[in-house]
Amino acid sequence: MKGGILLATLDDIAQELGISKSTVSKALNDAKDVSRRMKQAVWEKAVEMGYSRAERTSSAPRLAVFITNMEYTNPEDFGWEIIMGFRQAAEPMGYNVEIIPLDAALQNSMPYDAYMIMRNYCGALFLGLTLMDPWLKEFETCRTPTILYDNYVSGNPNVTAIGVDNVEGIALACRYLQSLGHEKIGYLSSALMSYVYRMRYDAFIRVMQEQGLRADDCVMGSAYQINAVLNDHLPRLLENGCTAIICSHDLLANSVMLHCRDLGLRVPEDISIMGFDDIPMCRYTIPPLTTIRQNRSALGKSAFYALSCHLKNVHLSTHLLHAELIRRGSCGNINN
Amino acid sequence: MKGGILLATLDDIAQELGISKSTVSKALNDAKDVSRRMKQAVWEKAVEMGYSRAERTSSAPRLAVFITNMEYTNPEDFGWEIIMGFRQAAEPMGYNVEIIPLDAALQNSMPYDAYMIMRNYCGALFLGLTLMDPWLKEFETCRTPTILYDNYVSGNPNVTAIGVDNVEGIALACRYLQSLGHEKIGYLSSALMSYVYRMRYDAFIRVMQEQGLRADDCVMGSAYQINAVLNDHLPRLLENGCTAIICSHDLLANSVMLHCRDLGLRVPEDISIMGFDDIPMCRYTIPPLTTIRQNRSALGKSAFYALSCHLKNVHLSTHLLHAELIRRGSCGNINN
Repeated sequence: MKGGILLATLDDIAQELGISKSTVSKALNDAKDVSRRMKQAVWEKAVEMGYSRAERTSSAPRLAVFITNMEYTNPEDFGWEIIMGFRQAAEPMGYNVEIIPLDAALQNSMPYDAYMIMRNYCGALFLGLTLMDPWLKEFETCRTPTILYDNYVSGNPNVTAIGVDNVEGIALACRYLQSLGHEKIGYLSSALMSYVYRMRYDAFIRVMQEQGLRADDCVMGSAYQINAVLNDHLPRLLENGCTAIICSHDLLANSVMLHCRDLGLRVPEDISIMGFDDIPMCRYTIPPLTTIRQNRSALGKSAFYALSCHLKNVHLSTHLLHAELIRRGSCGNINN
Repeated sequence: MKGGILLATLDDIAQELGISKSTVSKALNDAKDVSRRMKQAVWEKAVEMGYSRAERTSSAPRLAVFITNMEYTNPEDFGWEIIMGFRQAAEPMGYNVEIIPLDAALQNSMPYDAYMIMRNYCGALFLGLTLMDPWLKEFETCRTPTILYDNYVSGNPNVTAIGVDNVEGIALACRYLQSLGHEKIGYLSSALMSYVYRMRYDAFIRVMQEQGLRADDCVMGSAYQINAVLNDHLPRLLENGCTAIICSHDLLANSVMLHCRDLGLRVPEDISIMGFDDIPMCRYTIPPLTTIRQNRSALGKSAFYALSCHLKNVHLSTHLLHAELIRRGSCGNINN
């Protein structure tokens, strides 16, 4: 993601990894006397540092990453690690990866498949698409191998959905809170028009019912605006005795924590709050947010692996990463 | 799957593919002047024909395919193509694949991880496991990269579920029957204790409800024995006016077709019947069975790709193939 003016050299990579320049060179040239593990480490570092070999760029097959509604230019941005992971998997295999900001004008300028053929891309990853994006309809019939992050299209063999296993994530969250003694667990969500928020919401109902716990309007709420969640739903959950609340995503969880503090409640002594996603901010909230991680680097790599399955004629519908519980300070034992 | 006595030679492979022996040799030695596509074709044929290079077998990393409750020794068996696909993906990458019939005695003889370490396997695929298998419980905590076909274990990063997208398959079936004019669509299933049959059953309810169509006990039924499905449930579906019936798997669909014929109904003129899986038998039933395909060769390959993701530290929870509608003779237009 470096600017392109100051490109990293072999020396830079060698120094960064603490190995010799000749090892770096041999690894990048796929020499037989360098281990597979070392080659992968060198390639990943080379991609990360913006190293570029001019000879690779001439005839290498091209992959596109389309990005919209998602920040990705700084290491702290949500999209940055996904793109880095994708490049770290794709570039050592000889692919050229190009990042393309996607807006409605571009999508309206020509059909998706036509764009891909004209630009000579053999596959694409989409990050941040919404239901309003003009190309979304075309994914039902497109012929280009296409990976959609957090979007699911049924019935087209050329399209694969990737993301984290949201059902597993919610199950991990519920099980963890139960292990801390919580039984009245609430759920707050942004608007359920989002595919992912709907998945997580439905998963909460299912997981709670399987445990014989309550999951109805008394302990659940959703709204488009965060303020509406805080004002129209949070008070009801508190009145109904919730001692822990799972939120559909980290930003909402942080707002709920701040609002609870305004109401005179201590987190986690009086109420436990959980997020979802593990965005970089979670380490810096007060208290640091307990959440479910989407491993963004692995997500980017998995997108390339799904794409390479298409290129080998194995057409995946769904390709989900394991979710991971990240314990920090915002959830506590109910007896505290 | 060849016996090992009469091994295929380079000449055999060359003749089979209609290319020169030197091209076969170069492809197997990963020469730079042979295309990636040709190398893949040669390797797949080599695996299929039982070609073996002694030097590969000495130090290659080992993968295990455990198989139980599934036939696999003949090309017409359900497991045969899955195993072939797995080997066709794994062996060109330098892995040795061993097929291990799995019974309770083997599972009770030692813990799963211990077995894998002792035998020096770096990963495994399981075919045909049931809820009664002693090792099933260990998959919740095992450390060996493990791929389960048609079984889902939540919360262990080392285990991946593979299979076909059952929800998509049922949606394809319902949409196809609707396109033929059917609105009263029934569903018959084997026992819902099976993970896969439960998925398909629930998917039917969801898909039908989304279309505003009926999906309740009047048009649905399940039982452990096929005879119980035929005697206790099929008559009710017919009385309630179903003009098409989707069955949870092909064997059941064939029994339903035979039973309907005994009742004096013509398939598809009087009633349309759909299966699921596309087992080899479907081409030979009367009429040939319209069904949803699990591409078994692609399934085997996808199992290896999921395993290689683990070995690259990308831990997948779920890795599903696209389902595919196979139109044959058992479904017809409602106006026929």
